[in-house]
Amino acid sequence: MADYPTRVRINEEGPREGFQFEKGPIATADKIALIDALSQARLPQIQVASFVNPARVPGMADADAVVAGITRAPGTTYTALWLNEKGFDRALAHRGQIDLKGSISMVASESFMLRNQNRDFAENRRVQTRMVARYVEAGLTVERASMMAAFGCNFEGEVPVARVLAVMAETFEIAAECGVTIKTYSLADTMAWATPAAVQRVVGAVRERWPDLKVALHLHDTRGMGIANAFAGLQMGVDTFDASVAGLGGCPFAGHKAAAGNVCSEDLAFLCEEMGIETGIDLEALSEAARLAEQVVGHALPGSVMKAGRLNAYRRAA
Amino acid sequence: MADYPTRVRINEEGPREGFQFEKGPIATADKIALIDALSQARLPQIQVASFVNPARVPGMADADAVVAGITRAPGTTYTALWLNEKGFDRALAHRGQIDLKGSISMVASESFMLRNQNRDFAENRRVQTRMVARYVEAGLTVERASMMAAFGCNFEGEVPVARVLAVMAETFEIAAECGVTIKTYSLADTMAWATPAAVQRVVGAVRERWPDLKVALHLHDTRGMGIANAFAGLQMGVDTFDASVAGLGGCPFAGHKAAAGNVCSEDLAFLCEEMGIETGIDLEALSEAARLAEQVVGHALPGSVMKAGRLNAYRRAA
Repeated sequence: MADYPTRVRINEEGPREGFQFEKGPIATADKIALIDALSQARLPQIQVASFVNPARVPGMADADAVVAGITRAPGTTYTALWLNEKGFDRALAHRGQIDLKGSISMVASESFMLRNQNRDFAENRRVQTRMVARYVEAGLTVERASMMAAFGCNFEGEVPVARVLAVMAETFEIAAECGVTIKTYSLADTMAWATPAAVQRVVGAVRERWPDLKVALHLHDTRGMGIANAFAGLQMGVDTFDASVAGLGGCPFAGHKAAAGNVCSEDLAFLCEEMGIETGIDLEALSEAARLAEQVVGHALPGSVMKAGRLNAYRRAA
Repeated sequence: MADYPTRVRINEEGPREGFQFEKGPIATADKIALIDALSQARLPQIQVASFVNPARVPGMADADAVVAGITRAPGTTYTALWLNEKGFDRALAHRGQIDLKGSISMVASESFMLRNQNRDFAENRRVQTRMVARYVEAGLTVERASMMAAFGCNFEGEVPVARVLAVMAETFEIAAECGVTIKTYSLADTMAWATPAAVQRVVGAVRERWPDLKVALHLHDTRGMGIANAFAGLQMGVDTFDASVAGLGGCPFAGHKAAAGNVCSEDLAFLCEEMGIETGIDLEALSEAARLAEQVVGHALPGSVMKAGRLNAYRRAA
């Protein structure tokens, strides 16, 4: 019935997702403390900041100080996000402290791209081609691509599966022109349009067309479907997920009145633990980091397992 | 890959679950207003109160007044919960205003039963036999049974599938002795131990043993797995779910430090809507009732769709 993976990689995006989304100012030292707590939980990858225009995303104005301040843990990869050459130049200055990799960034909805990146499809193709050339020049690998709004858009409505496949095909054209090969494609449900059946439909169509491509999922929980969507992905054999500690975050340009954040890292890790799927994560330490995240942002966050506890603790007591 | 039903019945338990669980006092008029709002959402069934000891569950002290005060809507069944003969006698006094049906109540964990109902397995068998005799005497149908803690217990740990099957077999013995036939068996994840894989394992084992029995699920969201568990149930063809508007509720005797409530009615109805599964529910009206529930209890509740909105609204605007 299902093609569950034996091991799942949960890439932590809470610091980047959360600090860009939260309204109140968060002290740089608190951001660093949270990232260091996440490192202690043995996450395989943590996205620590985005190098974006501080006028548009004030919460990221201290990105350079955050990146400089974290303590790297062995076994964890530290990544950052940027949307243009200016952002990439800022990231390059931290080479060594963050692990730089190139990727191709696509969007399934042009309306959303105009709001989020302020460019249209044609302009994005030029930007991506130029960016990949810069990554290659800087000696970075470029093996990953991502697509925002892959399951639907608050501004355009449904995204047909055919569009997802067309945008992916364009991505591979850009890669081929630049002499790089995409091995992992991350599909992002930026505006929380995915349902479990849609995840299976889209991932199934991608698999059929490109059987050797690794598919990753970046899921939001805005409509409460996050874990169910992840489970649907697991059933399809998806083994790489972005997630946010405590369910931090959300996209400031998604046009939600009340946005819950990404699928919650510790809840997803709990699902894997209970299904006998390895993640390598210390779930107790991750739950502690989730409780720290609530302190840092100053309000309750949606994660459940940090409040209710794992089952293993009850099993030992019983 | 899946055996999705074409139509799903969502039985609303928010009033009973929520009013028993919330700490602050809730005015009787507010309880009635919420139930009336739920009636407007065209839910097929609403559990409006439990006739239990007010010394143990103070939030239910006004159960008689609540039941007397609601306005019945055509097409909706109104139910109540009771745990013993005294409670049943109170419910009987409201015959006509609530729709009385008999059922057999079992528990998979004796430790939990001692905490929740203050009786052991042997005593429960005597109580259930006596209760069914009383239902039959009162002219009620007895076609439903339920089992609490069917997926695990905070006090006993794992509940093996064999125990679930044994408790079910005992239920059918009680029914046979009393001359009634159980057609629907509701499995309750009272302490939120279920995961999607466990739902499929348990429901699968029950199906194999009793292929003609209708299986219903009563799911809690305490560890964030509620919607994923419901999706796993849908994949197994389960077409009857208990749920709580806005995610109200939780069991006061489940021993959780911080309990989220039941799986959220409007989020589950949204999942069904997006999968093309009919529920008969007016999802906009249900989301309004969810927002009213937040006002009534005086704090934020976990439901997502009431905050983020359905996709159909965005589809129309796009």
